[in-house]
Amino acid sequence: MSDKNQNHLQQRLALAEELARAGGEAALGWFHRRESLVIETKHDLQDVVSKADREVEQMIAARVRERFPDDGFLGEEYGLQRGSSGFTWVVDPIDGTSPFLNGMPNWCVSVAVLQDAVPVIGVINAPCFQESYVAALGQGATLNGRRLQVDPTRTLQNHVTGFGANSYVSPEAVGEIVASLLAAGGNFIRIGSGALMLAWVAAGRVVGYYEPYMHAWDCLAGYCLVKEAGGWYHPFNIEGDRITKGAKVLAVAPGAEADLRKIAGL
Amino acid sequence: MSDKNQNHLQQRLALAEELARAGGEAALGWFHRRESLVIETKHDLQDVVSKADREVEQMIAARVRERFPDDGFLGEEYGLQRGSSGFTWVVDPIDGTSPFLNGMPNWCVSVAVLQDAVPVIGVINAPCFQESYVAALGQGATLNGRRLQVDPTRTLQNHVTGFGANSYVSPEAVGEIVASLLAAGGNFIRIGSGALMLAWVAAGRVVGYYEPYMHAWDCLAGYCLVKEAGGWYHPFNIEGDRITKGAKVLAVAPGAEADLRKIAGL
Repeated sequence: MSDKNQNHLQQRLALAEELARAGGEAALGWFHRRESLVIETKHDLQDVVSKADREVEQMIAARVRERFPDDGFLGEEYGLQRGSSGFTWVVDPIDGTSPFLNGMPNWCVSVAVLQDAVPVIGVINAPCFQESYVAALGQGATLNGRRLQVDPTRTLQNHVTGFGANSYVSPEAVGEIVASLLAAGGNFIRIGSGALMLAWVAAGRVVGYYEPYMHAWDCLAGYCLVKEAGGWYHPFNIEGDRITKGAKVLAVAPGAEADLRKIAGL
Repeated sequence: MSDKNQNHLQQRLALAEELARAGGEAALGWFHRRESLVIETKHDLQDVVSKADREVEQMIAARVRERFPDDGFLGEEYGLQRGSSGFTWVVDPIDGTSPFLNGMPNWCVSVAVLQDAVPVIGVINAPCFQESYVAALGQGATLNGRRLQVDPTRTLQNHVTGFGANSYVSPEAVGEIVASLLAAGGNFIRIGSGALMLAWVAAGRVVGYYEPYMHAWDCLAGYCLVKEAGGWYHPFNIEGDRITKGAKVLAVAPGAEADLRKIAGL
């Protein structure tokens, strides 16, 4: 990477950290007065959105536009604005809206930056846990400043796997994935925020994360974190309109990679 | 309830709160130095225990024995000591040992007191969340002193359901439960601590909790909490040796009771 490009990356990393923190603070304010939020449903009754999601995304998008007007921007709530700089911000203002609206702490703000097709920055802020996960290509991953490194001795069998699914996947298919994970000697948790579970892969709290249909804004920051912590991820196809569509998402520590790729059919 | 019995209950409630808090503080100390803990497996590779579980249980058991020598005591790690007072303490020193040992915040200390066959006291302390859930028969349920009441308008379809399972249940059976929950329009989370998820039912964060095979120490404190917050639970059979065996556990807010009982076959 040239010095000039490195400089571009560092400037965006600093902004990504600042915006994930500011977004987390704003979202936490809404969380504490969540009874006042009007909840709307999207794809189905379980797929919810609120004013909090929209306002946090608008705040982050405005700050990016102001600072880097030529960068692209993709947010969960307002879609894609293409840019010309080669950098695209991919943001989920509140990942885990259902936990958020129901008073659970398992939600986060996820900010990724793609350079061409590669997630080169991943920042995840989990306000209820006071945790900030930060990664940039070639610079490693940290949690509240402490370096993260996945443990190569952990496997599907001696650790827990994160799992997620939504109604884009049939109940039978979800049941089959769960059954095959357990039959392989694994166990799973599902906290309702895929982005945060990906950060937990980087932190070694779970050995991997699989979701059969997930969007770019849910996974790209986590992908960068897992990669920089020594794990592997299944690339997300961002060509053309694919960046706005869902796809299989898998990120995993090396000791569980073969087992989880088999379960995911990847 | 006679004044004398009420007095007996209040004395034990005060001790249960004290011990859940003290147990939580001790466990949190271990959590912060968990790399030093030797992890042993029990039923299978996913069923783990550590010195932290044993020491917290011994501390709580000793304090109960000292104060109420005629009470019975059942703990997850050291089994059942029968008493003669009609009161039996049922304690899980760390519910969610796997999250605990892997650095996740989703674990708790669970302290219940049975009077004859009824859970009359339920206290759950979740140290990483700084949350204390307290209930006693006829006195309501609180979270950090704030009164809890389940929302009768929440259903399986417009809320999230907590779910748990372990290797006592076949992978296929677990997959079928998940599929039937989703097919009924529900969604689920699984945080790895059944006791804490039962407390979350009382707090309205999930609409219900179902686990097809769970032990008394995992569920009785949560049962008391859910009942006192206005929910329903499927009674746990504690007759004779049954108190040490696993059984189906279900606790739920009224709007999801019919759907979840159907899924659970109860």
